[in-house]
Amino acid sequence: MFIGEVVGTVVATRKTANMDGLPLRLVRKITPGLESTSAYTVVVDIMGASEGELVLVSSGSSARQTIQTDARPCDAIIMAIVDTWQVDGAVQYTKGELAVE
Amino acid sequence: MFIGEVVGTVVATRKTANMDGLPLRLVRKITPGLESTSAYTVVVDIMGASEGELVLVSSGSSARQTIQTDARPCDAIIMAIVDTWQVDGAVQYTKGELAVE
Amino acid sequence: MFIGEVVGTVVATRKTANMDGLPLRLVRKITPGLESTSAYTVVVDIMGASEGELVLVSSGSSARQTIQTDARPCDAIIMAIVDTWQVDGAVQYTKGELAVE
Amino acid sequence: MFIGEVVGTVVATRKTANMDGLPLRLVRKITPGLESTSAYTVVVDIMGASEGELVLVSSGSSARQTIQTDARPCDAIIMAIVDTWQVDGAVQYTKGELAVE
Amino acid sequence: MFIGEVVGTVVATRKTANMDGLPLRLVRKITPGLESTSAYTVVVDIMGASEGELVLVSSGSSARQTIQTDARPCDAIIMAIVDTWQVDGAVQYTKGELAVE
Repeated sequence: MFIGEVVGTVVATRKTANMDGLPLRLVRKITPGLESTSAYTVVVDIMGASEGELVLVSSGSSARQTIQTDARPCDAIIMAIVDTWQVDGAVQYTKGELAVE
Repeated sequence: MFIGEVVGTVVATRKTANMDGLPLRLVRKITPGLESTSAYTVVVDIMGASEGELVLVSSGSSARQTIQTDARPCDAIIMAIVDTWQVDGAVQYTKGELAVE
Repeated sequence: MFIGEVVGTVVATRKTANMDGLPLRLVRKITPGLESTSAYTVVVDIMGASEGELVLVSSGSSARQTIQTDARPCDAIIMAIVDTWQVDGAVQYTKGELAVE
Repeated sequence: MFIGEVVGTVVATRKTANMDGLPLRLVRKITPGLESTSAYTVVVDIMGASEGELVLVSSGSSARQTIQTDARPCDAIIMAIVDTWQVDGAVQYTKGELAVE
Repeated sequence: MFIGEVVGTVVATRKTANMDGLPLRLVRKITPGLESTSAYTVVVDIMGASEGELVLVSSGSSARQTIQTDARPCDAIIMAIVDTWQVDGAVQYTKGELAVE
């Protein structure tokens, strides 16, 4: 999994039938040190994340191991919304307190 | 998934039998800011996309989760045709209005 | 999938029993603009490709979706031999006419 | 698999139900020569690793081949805690003796 | 698959139970032109390879398509020991004759 920031939404009305009803979000990968990167991915949001929230993205066949995405052509999902993390004993992020630089 | 632009078509008459009838397209990856990149992939087009259209590409085993591609040696598909997306509250692309730079 | 050029052959007599009889080829990835790259992969050739031919390589679990490679520890195959492709309306390659630069 | 150092912990109370109870750790990839890299991943820790320990990370669908992670949207796990390794005949690391530079 | 050189061994006594008894080796990726690279991976060695031998590494779910690794959290194996390969008609390597530079 990697940590990402929800930065946008993708709308696609013409899609394979078994993707109907699954919201698509744009997620930008961030580093553990809270730096933004240029890497992004389009994911299925099964968590109802808001823009600016930091999330965990699960990729590959693992993205299909949920009730909503089982057997669907979806290769990445928002699997969790991050509350906090620390690196080397120091808190890097706490939801509601710090923003991505 | 990633956003790509359909830039071409690949023709291959000699292929494994279970790929017969599946159209192959060349897709160039683009950034959320609508910049073209040098990354490309060959995909199975199950959506009937046109050249120049922006699409979502699903990769890996997820590319086989459709009626057309089930159990076929296909590792990437056009899963949707993109209508619009926004990043940080600003619309980056609306089908029919903006072109990839 | 990606487009590659068959550049060589690998011989390995000591291998897992379920890989017996599957020919192994070296494939160099090329760009849609027919430029050679330094990226290469070893693939199972189920198509009987010749050296110098341009082929489509399918990777990951998708490489096992053929009769020859089903349930074998093979992560890439030659899935097709390319006849021609075009990008932005211009033919980039036609089998027998153009060579990789 | 790759060798990584456990550098932190991620807390996410809002997540897909089938990830409940699985601890999430931040792992930084290191080289066989014990150099730190900027590559990191978030993994499910089924081994109860401590911070600073060097571990083996297994990725993709292979991360689901354990009792704890079977059928869960988890794409990376700590599969083992490393005791020692050597390269070209020289011991690079022995648990408890050397630290990542 | 890719060609690699077996450069070391990893010992991990604390690991998931279903990895018991599977030897772990360090493999450095090499180019078809026999140049060493900085890319390495930890693999399960089902072939009994020796240090310095050149091998084929199979990755992802394909690494589980052997009797020894079926249903185990292993994402890369030594699938074969290489005897020889050629590129563009020239032999690049013959086991016992040439060494990686």
